[in-house]
Amino acid sequence: MQFSAQQIAGLLGGVIEGNPDVTVSKLSKIEEGMPGSISFLANPVYTHYIYTTNASLVIVNKDFEATGPISSTLIRVESAAAAFAKLLEMYNQVKLNKTGISKQAYISETATVGTNIYAGEFAVVSDNARIGNNVKIYPQVYIGDNVTVGDNTTLFAGVKIYSDCVIGANCIIHSGTVIGSDGFRFEPQNEEGQRKVPQIGNVFIEDDVEIGANCAIDRATLGSTILRKGVKFDNLIHIAHNVEIGENSYLAACNVVAGSTKIGKNCMFSGQVGIVGHLQIADNTIITAQSGISKSITKPGEVYMGSPAFDANKYRKAYIHFRNLDGLAQRIDKLEKQSKGQ
Amino acid sequence: MQFSAQQIAGLLGGVIEGNPDVTVSKLSKIEEGMPGSISFLANPVYTHYIYTTNASLVIVNKDFEATGPISSTLIRVESAAAAFAKLLEMYNQVKLNKTGISKQAYISETATVGTNIYAGEFAVVSDNARIGNNVKIYPQVYIGDNVTVGDNTTLFAGVKIYSDCVIGANCIIHSGTVIGSDGFRFEPQNEEGQRKVPQIGNVFIEDDVEIGANCAIDRATLGSTILRKGVKFDNLIHIAHNVEIGENSYLAACNVVAGSTKIGKNCMFSGQVGIVGHLQIADNTIITAQSGISKSITKPGEVYMGSPAFDANKYRKAYIHFRNLDGLAQRIDKLEKQSKGQ
Amino acid sequence: MQFSAQQIAGLLGGVIEGNPDVTVSKLSKIEEGMPGSISFLANPVYTHYIYTTNASLVIVNKDFEATGPISSTLIRVESAAAAFAKLLEMYNQVKLNKTGISKQAYISETATVGTNIYAGEFAVVSDNARIGNNVKIYPQVYIGDNVTVGDNTTLFAGVKIYSDCVIGANCIIHSGTVIGSDGFRFEPQNEEGQRKVPQIGNVFIEDDVEIGANCAIDRATLGSTILRKGVKFDNLIHIAHNVEIGENSYLAACNVVAGSTKIGKNCMFSGQVGIVGHLQIADNTIITAQSGISKSITKPGEVYMGSPAFDANKYRKAYIHFRNLDGLAQRIDKLEKQSKGQ
Repeated sequence: MQFSAQQIAGLLGGVIEGNPDVTVSKLSKIEEGMPGSISFLANPVYTHYIYTTNASLVIVNKDFEATGPISSTLIRVESAAAAFAKLLEMYNQVKLNKTGISKQAYISETATVGTNIYAGEFAVVSDNARIGNNVKIYPQVYIGDNVTVGDNTTLFAGVKIYSDCVIGANCIIHSGTVIGSDGFRFEPQNEEGQRKVPQIGNVFIEDDVEIGANCAIDRATLGSTILRKGVKFDNLIHIAHNVEIGENSYLAACNVVAGSTKIGKNCMFSGQVGIVGHLQIADNTIITAQSGISKSITKPGEVYMGSPAFDANKYRKAYIHFRNLDGLAQRIDKLEKQSKGQ
Repeated sequence: MQFSAQQIAGLLGGVIEGNPDVTVSKLSKIEEGMPGSISFLANPVYTHYIYTTNASLVIVNKDFEATGPISSTLIRVESAAAAFAKLLEMYNQVKLNKTGISKQAYISETATVGTNIYAGEFAVVSDNARIGNNVKIYPQVYIGDNVTVGDNTTLFAGVKIYSDCVIGANCIIHSGTVIGSDGFRFEPQNEEGQRKVPQIGNVFIEDDVEIGANCAIDRATLGSTILRKGVKFDNLIHIAHNVEIGENSYLAACNVVAGSTKIGKNCMFSGQVGIVGHLQIADNTIITAQSGISKSITKPGEVYMGSPAFDANKYRKAYIHFRNLDGLAQRIDKLEKQSKGQ
Repeated sequence: MQFSAQQIAGLLGGVIEGNPDVTVSKLSKIEEGMPGSISFLANPVYTHYIYTTNASLVIVNKDFEATGPISSTLIRVESAAAAFAKLLEMYNQVKLNKTGISKQAYISETATVGTNIYAGEFAVVSDNARIGNNVKIYPQVYIGDNVTVGDNTTLFAGVKIYSDCVIGANCIIHSGTVIGSDGFRFEPQNEEGQRKVPQIGNVFIEDDVEIGANCAIDRATLGSTILRKGVKFDNLIHIAHNVEIGENSYLAACNVVAGSTKIGKNCMFSGQVGIVGHLQIADNTIITAQSGISKSITKPGEVYMGSPAFDANKYRKAYIHFRNLDGLAQRIDKLEKQSKGQ
């Protein structure tokens, strides 16, 4: 796709400064701009790049004042950042606008599919599955029996959804993620080892949820493992059976939430956080990277750190002394010598 | 599937109290019971729910005494918990009882397959693979050359098994798990960087093993990476080349076991545990979440905690003081002042 | 494949001692040698096994002197280790030498593919993808639109590569790994929750890179997430958007590198390391297992440990005292009592 400066200025309601016929076909950072690309300048820290960039087109704020010659054509807009974000979104929409059902997809005769869906090669939609409108099912996705997928949801290549799970509308699930695998639960040991407890619940995902690549979200033993509206997951996250994640909570990569724990709303967990089972975590809780939560958190909006974790400020204070624990020990040695010497 | 109270009472050898014609089609927790579902009451903590549940049918212990009106039909049995577990298992067996080989599966002419197997769409069974009886191969599974899969084993959608690996009987492997990828081993650096050591061993998995979703179990350099009988893995576990996991050991999510380490029998490791390479871990070892094991453990039955880990009780004691390390430091300050003030 | 002692001796330029007609079909460790296998003896620690091994053939160093009867046929060579490594490599090359495009692979008409490629069943090569010569695409691999794959690269079963990514020559990517999923980035919260920032960059992987199983490498927001020449990844690694990993750096299993961080050359990170976003890590940095890096590292060649990490020697010293923190606290108690008692 090629666009002229004129077309883009029209789209963004901007004013051209320079050659209106220059054309671009991709977006770039201003410091990596090359002929044929469009960039933007919003952060003053990057201003110097505008005099050297090779981008054909640069979006700038209306009130930008050049202090030297610029070879790029400029488009002046109200907010360069907002205008560029709009371009990004349009670009992405065009790029990801797949439609049509491949002849090499398998869709069960008993499944129902909405209008305007995409189903790529070697995707599987099993018996009695219900697929909404505008759903995008990339190649090699597996949708098990009785699964429901809401409108406008995208499942990238190779997502696997076990039977009976429910996925909301406007969700995005990235490649390799598994939804609805069995929870990890076995009955107490007898002579022949432990016995698997059948996992016959499901996973229930509300609207506007995004899940990264290669996550694993287990089905409930009975009932549902639940991700509430607006939950966002990074990659490689493990969610055990019967967990519930509250609205708009954000989990960074490699989080582990053990069985039956309930996480509140608007929580933010950094990478590699672990949370033990059967806990309640209050709304707006923040947990720093690599921390381990071993007790319920009842007061909302607190920050936790450490393994096992406690108040982050207290942790940081303790850790300063830990770093110098050898010094503290030497001071005790000295005090003891003085004490004996008396 | 619809079942009447009468049919279920017959199945469980129970006695009906209430309407014998009421029908149910699913199982639920008593607190989430709805018309058409069957629940159970075993734990006295939940007794109050029986007076408000909407479940059509509730299984109770023979000696349960109601203290108020109950709208559900009851089935009295010897043990409500055992009876419900039996129902769960039957339900699961029916639900997962897939059979038949899809026309869209690929099975090499040189592969041998047992009786009564299931092979879903776009599954691949490669040259000289040997598949036992009653094996379930879900869609998009990949079984490499010369792989053996034992009787009654289930491979969920998208499992990938590299060539020459051996999977036992009665195993369950969940979606996205990779068996037999190359171990991570490179020869010492020369001017042109490191050189890959070919990984020509395999993975050998004994009977009754269950592996969660998105695990990665590397093949041995030579010989086998081994999971012994009854081993159970949660999701997202990494097992390096030439590791051996002993009988009936349980690893929770996101465990990492580095190369050539041998784990004993009946061990239990919590989530995010890491174990360095070339160690021996004694039978019945317990490791708490996020711990890191850096030395062999020779005494069986001990509990380890920390990174690097040591005796869990000692760790907890040390950690109590760590939490208040600022306080300890202030006490040292004070002692020093007193000492100087003398 | 069967080979005689004579054939192998010819291949390796070695001298036979024993029966030249004995044949072997597999490679084994000397302690696990069985009839029909070939082993080697290089490390003196294993010397005693040569008198009991059942391997039909054993490669030994030219100057090996037996001190007892040996039943295996020997092949004497300059370096037994180097000769065996050569055999391993040849064995592996033969075993992995797949060719041909399966009728059940899907290759877009607008894709271009080189000579001598392998494309297995249910693999997908999308529009305008460019596949080099001798590339091996195992079953169920997904290659998105406009992806480039360099010569001699192997993509094992089920690898997923999103649109516009670039993979170099001589790379190996293991099963389940996802390349090019969206970065985890959302705009600040408003009343309706956060808004996804479109991720329109790509992943750019240079030559000679190996990536383990079930890794997830996110595409850049703009520009590229970059893995430089010779980078090696173990399994289950998460790389966030706009990260760059320098030449010949090695990351062990379950590493997490957050957004926009730049890692230097020849770094070595042990398992479960986490690195926060927007940092610079100097060349030759070594990080011990489970450590968390929260600040940039500017001095090359240092060793880091802890979470948050600092100099590994200092960490180990502090940790010795941490293990005995209860003892330190008791000594302070005692000093205080003495002080009061004065």
